[in-house]
Amino acid sequence: MRYALNPNQTEAAEAKQRDFDCYFSSYAYLYHQKEMLQDMQRMDAYHGAIMGIQDHIQGKKVLDIGAGTGILSIWAKIAGAQKVWAVEFTDMAKYAKKLCKANDPDGVISVLQQSAEEVILDSRVDIIVSEWMGMFLLRESMLDSLIRVRDRLLKPDGLMMPSHATMYWGLTSNEYEYDKLKSEMDEATQAWRPFIDQIADKYGVKLHALSSDYAQEQKEYYIHHSRWVSLGSEDVVCPGVPVKHINVKTVTLKQAKGVEPTPFRFEATKDANVTGFLGWFDTTFRVDSTDTDPVVLSTSPKAGPTHWGQQFFPFEKTLFLKKGDIIEGTMEMFRSNFTQRTYKVRATWKLLGVDATTPTKSALWHIE
Amino acid sequence: MRYALNPNQTEAAEAKQRDFDCYFSSYAYLYHQKEMLQDMQRMDAYHGAIMGIQDHIQGKKVLDIGAGTGILSIWAKIAGAQKVWAVEFTDMAKYAKKLCKANDPDGVISVLQQSAEEVILDSRVDIIVSEWMGMFLLRESMLDSLIRVRDRLLKPDGLMMPSHATMYWGLTSNEYEYDKLKSEMDEATQAWRPFIDQIADKYGVKLHALSSDYAQEQKEYYIHHSRWVSLGSEDVVCPGVPVKHINVKTVTLKQAKGVEPTPFRFEATKDANVTGFLGWFDTTFRVDSTDTDPVVLSTSPKAGPTHWGQQFFPFEKTLFLKKGDIIEGTMEMFRSNFTQRTYKVRATWKLLGVDATTPTKSALWHIE
Repeated sequence: MRYALNPNQTEAAEAKQRDFDCYFSSYAYLYHQKEMLQDMQRMDAYHGAIMGIQDHIQGKKVLDIGAGTGILSIWAKIAGAQKVWAVEFTDMAKYAKKLCKANDPDGVISVLQQSAEEVILDSRVDIIVSEWMGMFLLRESMLDSLIRVRDRLLKPDGLMMPSHATMYWGLTSNEYEYDKLKSEMDEATQAWRPFIDQIADKYGVKLHALSSDYAQEQKEYYIHHSRWVSLGSEDVVCPGVPVKHINVKTVTLKQAKGVEPTPFRFEATKDANVTGFLGWFDTTFRVDSTDTDPVVLSTSPKAGPTHWGQQFFPFEKTLFLKKGDIIEGTMEMFRSNFTQRTYKVRATWKLLGVDATTPTKSALWHIE
Repeated sequence: MRYALNPNQTEAAEAKQRDFDCYFSSYAYLYHQKEMLQDMQRMDAYHGAIMGIQDHIQGKKVLDIGAGTGILSIWAKIAGAQKVWAVEFTDMAKYAKKLCKANDPDGVISVLQQSAEEVILDSRVDIIVSEWMGMFLLRESMLDSLIRVRDRLLKPDGLMMPSHATMYWGLTSNEYEYDKLKSEMDEATQAWRPFIDQIADKYGVKLHALSSDYAQEQKEYYIHHSRWVSLGSEDVVCPGVPVKHINVKTVTLKQAKGVEPTPFRFEATKDANVTGFLGWFDTTFRVDSTDTDPVVLSTSPKAGPTHWGQQFFPFEKTLFLKKGDIIEGTMEMFRSNFTQRTYKVRATWKLLGVDATTPTKSALWHIE
């Protein structure tokens, strides 16, 4: 009955309910919050960034979007904010209220259990803090909400924290993960044959007609889905290349949709057996353009583990590179049709060897 | 735009989309179908039941609801059916079409990719076959669809296969699963203390206000959710008691909603450390009331493993019973508010010992 008569409102409400079922609900668990609060790189970066701008935050109005337990809001209060609004959609807001009561007895922080996009304040704010980044930066698409709230509620000279983000695309030789993946795929694929023989023998039904579909399903699952990995610098074949820069203060909804087809070029710094591409990101907390030593939160394999890890996009077959060999190509990233919160990545590439050019390859991966 | 103007239709369409997202989609994978096709107790029962009524099925019209790969339809065809409709909502229908083409070259089977409730046939059918059972029989609530289709499309003297089902409630002493559960819970709960100390030391935020909420969340997760187990007869303390009988031919939507508050009484057949309740079911394939030796598919711990296993409802603390001790109580099972496909079970019980009566206990578990 809520959604009567207005078809547009209907579709929006429907999408929102589905979104809650599939996305927001996980953020309502303390266990999940604890995992994020134990990511010390994440914590150190945000804590360092907020405490590092106490001169700037003093007496200001701060908005914390997707506040979770309210930890960023409490830091903003400690750093001297005049007023902080912590906006959290899930029931985690109830815990944020308890936590703010214990850590902010004078009530600088107000917890609002609302969709950020529906928040109404008396005045615009000076600073928006938010930890909106998903896997490979854009997964979860929370940046969309941030942009809409920014345009409505941030003062024209206001500050976004973090202020910038960059996505990187690289090559990896993580043979351990790759071999595990391949052997799991092979095992699953090979289990088909005795299975269909047994069904034919015992129950008189021929499943052979589905053999290639089954093999294809296995390949989709193992090779055409990217995976969370947590790699070290030894797994990286050459420096990653930036494929997208985001200025959080000015990024548009259109720019937040993904990565337009973007060329990349890698030169191997060592002989290596390349197992696939690798995606990661960093975010920067810069107050203004004179800020030459800002806090950076990096999820690169060289920066040590975070709960974001990196995304591994496996090749069907490994590719042996000699030092100096070059891989050239193009990658793009776009949203899935099924849900706006998951993505697909398409890449085409070729190897420019010392002696020869190999044929162009291409692949599509789901980020789920 | 599809849903304009009719609010009832709107809510129904919305619920259906959410249902598809959260429920049906898993049935579109061959890997998942393979797991079900490898459940030999399931396969032997359906195969034996269908092949055992060839006299009855000869020349008849058969409807297979939720056909998956179409295996039951193919057996019905082999058993001599004149016409079979295999109804499957997910894209598994495409594979069912391939499989039927390979196993049914004369086209006795028609695969319809539709919601079963929307199927329209020229005439009513003689037999409906379906494998609609979820964990603890009712989970997934597919019985609702079956009832609606039965009332619309089965001839008055038609046959449901299976024809009957019974839910059982028992006591278990599965200490291995229980100890694992408790030690995981204890580990997770104890990890909170050093975590909040670290956050207080490093980042100046007191999380103590959430300690009891976190412990409660862990208890909810570990003790107040039932779990899939696959037990043997050694884990059973006394015979299970039936808590609900279902005649698939006559069961109503109201009766399919769960189990009304139902008394139970167990007498321990041996000294045992009881770790919780246990739920399972059996289904029977009976052609008529003179059928004295029907095929039975049982998921009891005494019947050997199936992919349904049993549902384990853990106690907060184990309860030591001496042979002859009696536990009396009441159990009920009802649908979750969040989704019609998951359930909750509530039980109250007391121990009538040789010497004394202990206080009444009660608990609520989620079946997810």
